[in-house]
Amino acid sequence: MRIVQKYGGSSLKDAQCIGRVADRIAKSYHEGNQLIIVLSAQGNTTNELIKKAMELNDQPSQRELDMLLATGEQQSVALMSLALSKRNCSSVSLNAYQAKIQSDGIYGSARITNIDTTRIEEELSQSNIVLVTGFQAVNHTEDFTTLGRGGSDTSAVAIAHVLNADFCEIYSDVDGIYSADPRQVPHAKKLKSIDYDSMLELSSLGAKVLHNRSVEIARKYGVVLHIKSSFDDIEGTTVMQNPIEKTKVSGVVVDKNIATISVIGLKDRPGIAYQIFSVLAHNNIPIDIILQSIGRDNTKDMVFTVSLDNGPKALEYLLSAQHDFEAEDIILNEASAKLSVVGAGLEANPVIGAVVFETLFKAGVNIDMISTSEIKMSLIIPQEQANEAVVLLHDRLLEYI
Amino acid sequence: MRIVQKYGGSSLKDAQCIGRVADRIAKSYHEGNQLIIVLSAQGNTTNELIKKAMELNDQPSQRELDMLLATGEQQSVALMSLALSKRNCSSVSLNAYQAKIQSDGIYGSARITNIDTTRIEEELSQSNIVLVTGFQAVNHTEDFTTLGRGGSDTSAVAIAHVLNADFCEIYSDVDGIYSADPRQVPHAKKLKSIDYDSMLELSSLGAKVLHNRSVEIARKYGVVLHIKSSFDDIEGTTVMQNPIEKTKVSGVVVDKNIATISVIGLKDRPGIAYQIFSVLAHNNIPIDIILQSIGRDNTKDMVFTVSLDNGPKALEYLLSAQHDFEAEDIILNEASAKLSVVGAGLEANPVIGAVVFETLFKAGVNIDMISTSEIKMSLIIPQEQANEAVVLLHDRLLEYI
Repeated sequence: MRIVQKYGGSSLKDAQCIGRVADRIAKSYHEGNQLIIVLSAQGNTTNELIKKAMELNDQPSQRELDMLLATGEQQSVALMSLALSKRNCSSVSLNAYQAKIQSDGIYGSARITNIDTTRIEEELSQSNIVLVTGFQAVNHTEDFTTLGRGGSDTSAVAIAHVLNADFCEIYSDVDGIYSADPRQVPHAKKLKSIDYDSMLELSSLGAKVLHNRSVEIARKYGVVLHIKSSFDDIEGTTVMQNPIEKTKVSGVVVDKNIATISVIGLKDRPGIAYQIFSVLAHNNIPIDIILQSIGRDNTKDMVFTVSLDNGPKALEYLLSAQHDFEAEDIILNEASAKLSVVGAGLEANPVIGAVVFETLFKAGVNIDMISTSEIKMSLIIPQEQANEAVVLLHDRLLEYI
Repeated sequence: MRIVQKYGGSSLKDAQCIGRVADRIAKSYHEGNQLIIVLSAQGNTTNELIKKAMELNDQPSQRELDMLLATGEQQSVALMSLALSKRNCSSVSLNAYQAKIQSDGIYGSARITNIDTTRIEEELSQSNIVLVTGFQAVNHTEDFTTLGRGGSDTSAVAIAHVLNADFCEIYSDVDGIYSADPRQVPHAKKLKSIDYDSMLELSSLGAKVLHNRSVEIARKYGVVLHIKSSFDDIEGTTVMQNPIEKTKVSGVVVDKNIATISVIGLKDRPGIAYQIFSVLAHNNIPIDIILQSIGRDNTKDMVFTVSLDNGPKALEYLLSAQHDFEAEDIILNEASAKLSVVGAGLEANPVIGAVVFETLFKAGVNIDMISTSEIKMSLIIPQEQANEAVVLLHDRLLEYI
């Protein structure tokens, strides 16, 4: 089989960790697999390099920062090659130049545009394990461009796609995707499998196991992902289009990193929503859930959520433009939380929605806003009730997970 | 003016050192010079990376070691670019791929075969300071190849040549070339200038200021070198073909890292020297000075020097072949030293030779072997007298320096 494996920085943080990963790679190699290994920088290397850069320049050029950071993964692949040859595995390390991973020109958050697989295929045909630097690509001027935090996942999935790999294994210090954060929810259950859409909802909601873009690419090209721990040998979670064992609900997550902004007493005239949201768009503030309701005296209220750190800024921009859209009041609430239930079976099973509302009602949780999609139901609730609500809701939904 | 500057690792070891070097570069840039800066890895980085590699594999592949080590210089150039932009200097960092420094394929000790200057010239024409990684080149399979220890000097001189730079400044923690090792010889004098040939003799004799190959390239292409300290602003030493202020003697150096081997009582027949030295050549043991003399009873004695660490091996190989060339005895002497006087004026001034012999005779120093060339006179003397002899000889020759 042709397999892409990706190992994160925490799996590579010292010689012992590198050795453990090398053992795992060697085992798969000696079983006869063709292996392409994508590596992140070791442990805390990237942060240390950024610290060094900031000592010299607190507003570093992103082009030079990328040039600096790209060395981290290059060290990882070279070191891993040495560890593998000690284990009688022939391998070759390639950086983004050598692996011909091309990107658009955006330093710090580049997107992969093309991978010329000639060299990688040639090395594979010579029975070499191919070790490729994650997180980096080269733009049209031959400069390093990094793919943003977590970009090694994206590298791995893109490489798995262009090489027609049977699947892509993502190894980290997390052993799979859980139905809730196990630190918050004692009965959180590791999922055997999950579909791409639900995975996307879960990861954007805060289950920071997989880089979002990597899931998007995997979905687009149908790359099967196996999420596993590099520290033990237990089964992980498979991410694929149509899992055989379909769960109705994949997970329950809570996000306390939100703020709600209420714009109250708007005149009911066309274009008012456009006015409000263009102020925020022009200032690069993304908006999540939007709710519009009828207020008193034929006015409208508009409530929406932004990330917690954007809250004060958003309020400030709106207040300075308040005159234009004639709002009676604008209120920032930083004590909210977003509770979400994610699952491919939500739409087909309206009973789940009913269970959610019943559970929260019985627990006395007040619901401020509701937003639903085919595979997600999000509820804005008071932050102080969030911890209790996620545990209650998860355990009540366990039969659907 | 177009200037290449090279800074060694000790000049870059921390943020403060990088800042000091950046100040120096910025000054020259704001004076209107076109600058190409060649950097080594920071401080002890290369050794630390080698240590990391050895932890994983005590016989590391040189290809992977080069891949690993190449990251050190890449970090230096990126960090320096950040420090320069803080000083209002626009700059761009280039690794060996980007600067198109090509080499033959020998990992660990590659030689530069070509430099395509297109990108460098383009960056210079945009008023950028061009920061280039020293010590590294890329071979025909697009793999990193390092140039061997001290290879950054070679990078700098080669770049100065292909770019037709006015001169090449080599900055390190040493402020110039001295007429003797100042730690050994209190009156050692810094030379204002020195010719390439004398510099080559001095550096191969142990004055480890400049990488030998860099001097050879400089001589071949007439690249003028300025040897300076990065820690202060005092004048250094200029290395060039025909220094205006010609000194008769450039320096007096002593090398205790030698062993002499005497092969005694050889029959006087043709091919005997060939037999002896082919044994050593086949075992990769370089020979320095060779002396052949008439022994007792019409036999010949052959005496030569090897490096101290090669002494026991050389003796062993010769003893195992002793039967072939019928020597009466083979003796290893590890208590020798080589005292050398180097200077472009030696040949034209026979009086200097007389002064050397007179000085050593008066000091009771026994001379075991003598070897002379146009610009060098080397004497093998007892090691225990070496320290005293070098000081005496240097001070007596001071009038010619």
